[in-house]
Amino acid sequence: MTSSSRIFSRVIHTLQSHQAMSSPYKKLKLSIENPVPSDYEISRKQTPKPIVEVGKECGILDSELEPYGAYKAKVKLNVLDRLTARKNGKYVLVAGITPTPLGEGKSTTTVGIAQAMGAVLGKRVFANVRQPSMGPTFGVKGGAAGGGYSQVIPMDEFNMHLTGDIHAVSMANNLLAAALDTRMFHEARQSDKALWKRLCPVTKDGSRDIPRGLLPRVKKLGLDKKDPNEWTDEEIGKFVRLDVDPETVTWKRVVDLNDRSLRGITINEAPTEKGLTRKTGFDISVASEVMAILALSTSLEDMRKRLGNIVVASSKSGEPITCEDLGCGGALAAIMKDAIKPNLMQTLEGTPVFVHAGPFANISIGASSILADKIALKLAGTDSENPDPGYVVTEAGFDFTMGGERFLNIKCRNSGLSPDVIVIVATVRALKVHGGGAAVKPNQPLAPEYTSENLDMLRKGCTNLQKHIENARQYGVDVVVAINQMSCDTANEHEVIRKASLEAGAVDAVTSNHWGKGGEGAKKLALAVMKCANKEYPVQQTRDEHFHYLYSVDGASTIKEKIEVIAKKMYNADAVEFSPKAVKKLEEYTKQGFTNLPICMAKTQYSISHDPNWKGVPSHYTFPIKDIKASIGAGYLYALADKIQTIPGLATRCGFMNVEIGKDGEITGLF
Amino acid sequence: MTSSSRIFSRVIHTLQSHQAMSSPYKKLKLSIENPVPSDYEISRKQTPKPIVEVGKECGILDSELEPYGAYKAKVKLNVLDRLTARKNGKYVLVAGITPTPLGEGKSTTTVGIAQAMGAVLGKRVFANVRQPSMGPTFGVKGGAAGGGYSQVIPMDEFNMHLTGDIHAVSMANNLLAAALDTRMFHEARQSDKALWKRLCPVTKDGSRDIPRGLLPRVKKLGLDKKDPNEWTDEEIGKFVRLDVDPETVTWKRVVDLNDRSLRGITINEAPTEKGLTRKTGFDISVASEVMAILALSTSLEDMRKRLGNIVVASSKSGEPITCEDLGCGGALAAIMKDAIKPNLMQTLEGTPVFVHAGPFANISIGASSILADKIALKLAGTDSENPDPGYVVTEAGFDFTMGGERFLNIKCRNSGLSPDVIVIVATVRALKVHGGGAAVKPNQPLAPEYTSENLDMLRKGCTNLQKHIENARQYGVDVVVAINQMSCDTANEHEVIRKASLEAGAVDAVTSNHWGKGGEGAKKLALAVMKCANKEYPVQQTRDEHFHYLYSVDGASTIKEKIEVIAKKMYNADAVEFSPKAVKKLEEYTKQGFTNLPICMAKTQYSISHDPNWKGVPSHYTFPIKDIKASIGAGYLYALADKIQTIPGLATRCGFMNVEIGKDGEITGLF
Repeated sequence: MTSSSRIFSRVIHTLQSHQAMSSPYKKLKLSIENPVPSDYEISRKQTPKPIVEVGKECGILDSELEPYGAYKAKVKLNVLDRLTARKNGKYVLVAGITPTPLGEGKSTTTVGIAQAMGAVLGKRVFANVRQPSMGPTFGVKGGAAGGGYSQVIPMDEFNMHLTGDIHAVSMANNLLAAALDTRMFHEARQSDKALWKRLCPVTKDGSRDIPRGLLPRVKKLGLDKKDPNEWTDEEIGKFVRLDVDPETVTWKRVVDLNDRSLRGITINEAPTEKGLTRKTGFDISVASEVMAILALSTSLEDMRKRLGNIVVASSKSGEPITCEDLGCGGALAAIMKDAIKPNLMQTLEGTPVFVHAGPFANISIGASSILADKIALKLAGTDSENPDPGYVVTEAGFDFTMGGERFLNIKCRNSGLSPDVIVIVATVRALKVHGGGAAVKPNQPLAPEYTSENLDMLRKGCTNLQKHIENARQYGVDVVVAINQMSCDTANEHEVIRKASLEAGAVDAVTSNHWGKGGEGAKKLALAVMKCANKEYPVQQTRDEHFHYLYSVDGASTIKEKIEVIAKKMYNADAVEFSPKAVKKLEEYTKQGFTNLPICMAKTQYSISHDPNWKGVPSHYTFPIKDIKASIGAGYLYALADKIQTIPGLATRCGFMNVEIGKDGEITGLF
Repeated sequence: MTSSSRIFSRVIHTLQSHQAMSSPYKKLKLSIENPVPSDYEISRKQTPKPIVEVGKECGILDSELEPYGAYKAKVKLNVLDRLTARKNGKYVLVAGITPTPLGEGKSTTTVGIAQAMGAVLGKRVFANVRQPSMGPTFGVKGGAAGGGYSQVIPMDEFNMHLTGDIHAVSMANNLLAAALDTRMFHEARQSDKALWKRLCPVTKDGSRDIPRGLLPRVKKLGLDKKDPNEWTDEEIGKFVRLDVDPETVTWKRVVDLNDRSLRGITINEAPTEKGLTRKTGFDISVASEVMAILALSTSLEDMRKRLGNIVVASSKSGEPITCEDLGCGGALAAIMKDAIKPNLMQTLEGTPVFVHAGPFANISIGASSILADKIALKLAGTDSENPDPGYVVTEAGFDFTMGGERFLNIKCRNSGLSPDVIVIVATVRALKVHGGGAAVKPNQPLAPEYTSENLDMLRKGCTNLQKHIENARQYGVDVVVAINQMSCDTANEHEVIRKASLEAGAVDAVTSNHWGKGGEGAKKLALAVMKCANKEYPVQQTRDEHFHYLYSVDGASTIKEKIEVIAKKMYNADAVEFSPKAVKKLEEYTKQGFTNLPICMAKTQYSISHDPNWKGVPSHYTFPIKDIKASIGAGYLYALADKIQTIPGLATRCGFMNVEIGKDGEITGLF
């Protein structure tokens, strides 16, 4: 036994001794089968605890819990006020290497670590995950609740409706769209005078009745210190006429389905709309800025403000037109008032899960909500009665270099939080792809290199993992690599990954089989993560003193510079090339005053670069920016390296074709 | 005191004596103010009981109740199995005269009667109402939870989202639309062979993997007795190619908002859709056939079947293409699996309310769900332990002659239930309109005839009320007229209405002020309804022996004959004229075998006829049928007397412009 492995054993022993403490959660026992049945079968076989019981175990008061059916509940935000004195628990970010289209198991690992910590090691722990879109649920065969023996249950409720948050997002998004188009219609057909008369009628006492929702616009135009009856015609005109340039409308409608027919549409074709047709399209609901706002809001008040700030178009004179200008901010917030409360569910082993927000990783931050994390960190936090820290395990969509970067530079910047440890999930399969293996595709048999040992190919591919580790370390956070075990892997292969990980500065690299064995399978990984999060690891040389962002947003760097920093430091590019369109947008946003915002990069997740075919660690290349768009309400600009599809389609054979329902309401064939 | 009024007093005394029995519900006390504050202020001032308490008071077991937040819950359908031995409670249908655009208070009366019976008279009672659409909630200033001191609370939760049923309807509707358009896309671009390979791939053992959802189509084509590997090319072609005629597509997408821009659109304009553009449009979600199915289903199994039966288009050879042909029936049922459970809420005085389904009255049945009625009737029902019958008060959208007719001929035919009494709500204001008064419009001051006594005008207008009473009596059900009191009414005017009502065969006519005084204001009306429902009324001459439908659907009458019966007997028309388009549809539906269905008439509610300007009782006219459409899943054909707008628009000044939200999540300005 080497010296370091002796220390390792001792630390494991110390951590395991905590197990003697009574577990906070009543464990749901697993009856492991081999081969592992389908996710849905596993979910159905387990009887979840009533959610009120889970809430109690978490330390949530009855008055703070709003059950939605037997197994889901909303948690009121005032739990934060009650626990304000508590020190936060430990914050664990799960990210991944550059994946294959089959996925490398980030969600499964997130849930698996939580099951290990909570159900096996007796720790307070929360898995914080995104709510899946119903589009992919019915589009392809697959849910998003983890998988195998590490999943959120009941998986059908997790994958359909949940407590209605995505529906609220869709409604808020689409009310704003209807308000905008209707306003354009009415402005096109009415004089300033007629608009003034209708928008703000004269009341019985002779005063003007300005709807409350339009008061922010009154203020914006500096008209709030003058009696509306004394406004000049010019002032009235400025107030009532938004004068939207139809060409500049960026706000699209949304639907939470894979409906490709709605990608490009022409609206206003009914005779009642008098020929004011306009080309537009639908996005999937989770791609809505409203969803990003839900994820990034830090309070109800903050959400209200962000919703009002949404920019939907420009006026003909180039001024941004906001949700507030349309008088819609309050209504959108009202529609979202319950959606802002995080949803509590449980894992297959009965440990608590927060499911909240699900912004599309393609063009948004791809992370669950700040409020869920804040609440979970308090519930897992420490005070005189709870000296032993709990854990919040959450995930960043896509690979570390994209999802993790956004998590740290956008989500953490909004929340003021920073992770205590970053877990990077790697698989032998994906690393072999980076080492030159054949392309891996869904529903196709794997090439031989994936079903037998190939250490050379794997070693070569480990450069990809090493780049992600190095990238994560640039933020000053310790990294633990989770080797997500698959059936064809060999111990030698795991050792190759482990060595490469440590070489790149990871604190540890641990093989985990949570998919096949649940929390028990992730116990070693969980212990490594706990050690790292508690800084008990004997050697501290790999951890910087402080967490720091990759770039500043206080005006010290321009939009262009921020994009260049990300492309160079994260994507290994030599330079960035901005298209003429992107250059124009840079100028426009700079002029409109949107320079002090972080950047959300929109590119493929199948390469560290912009080209999905470039595996491993691409270098010596120029990263292209095709377009830049603004999510002012959410609080970021997003830079597109390519045309990103914002609403998926359905295949010839779809997931929905296998779904059936029994007399008892039991669903089959969903997954 | 006359003899009959003596009997009346005695009966009232007997009924009131039941009050001595302990009330089943803990009463929420009203603190009546005058003038009556806004609906939302009244709602906010009342603290509702926890919904679990309301559930207990109703006799719903904990295991049958699924709370959604503190004040709403879903009730599981298995309550019907438990109470199967109970005799149903009394079934009260609230309908109205031909209304003004201001509405005559049907919902308010429905809730008011329930508050009187439950909170004042100590009876078991349920108000069963429709879930409102969010479109009108944000479009015009007004909710749909009753009003004044007779409403459902909390009204913001009632008017927004509820438990997500309308969202589920939208998703189910739109998944079917996406499935249809995507199928048309794939069929246009693939050979039979390619479709076959993708839809039903060959499995490892060489057999064909036919998705479960397509098995009904296999059966429909008579291919279920043959190994798919032995199907001929022709059989494969028939199976994989639905060959939809794009011109015949009737299925539209929906959104639960007033979005006029979506009335007419062109889809498939994105380059990925290869130029397969198609003109279509959106309806408001509550106009979806899926919503009608929710209202008319008698069990989960029945709903599953109806969803599969939805006809979305015809093939090029004229065969109806169903949801089942697209393999979508199971998925739609899965999406709707929770929506089918009725929602429990409460009135301002703490009596239980079922809120379930809200099909658009314009083109659908405009009534709440059969399942909510069935459950409520059992919960209000009698057995050895509960000898005193309870009541279920529910309403039919629009006037009696339209909404009531559909309730009886469509909803009752599906449920097998029939009302014990029909309440027809009348107002002095509306009857004066029918007597020749000036037009009444929202947001405009009332003409003088409405603010002072005018007995002649009123007397003349009472013919409208009398026609509705006569119409109701054609079904063999007793009628009680509810005179919904308004502030300018006089006692003389109420007496005129009372006399006219009795003259037309109503059992009673009672003035009610539930809006201003809650249950106490509707006590007399409730007593009259209870007497009538219990057949304790001394004189039975106005009641036929048995309830009967207006027409049969067993093939004894053609589609045309059924429409004629409704137009003549209900609308007082001399004849019906079918447009060439309608004649063509008659032929088509007859050919497709859809003759044995009831008819849902789609026409204005502002006249007994098809012309909103014809007040009173129009006669000697020909009723026009412009078009006939089919809702095969819901189980009716609908005949349109005019072009009906199936998605409203927003005005220049909209309801949403006044909505704001406070830090505590309290909404203001919603109503």
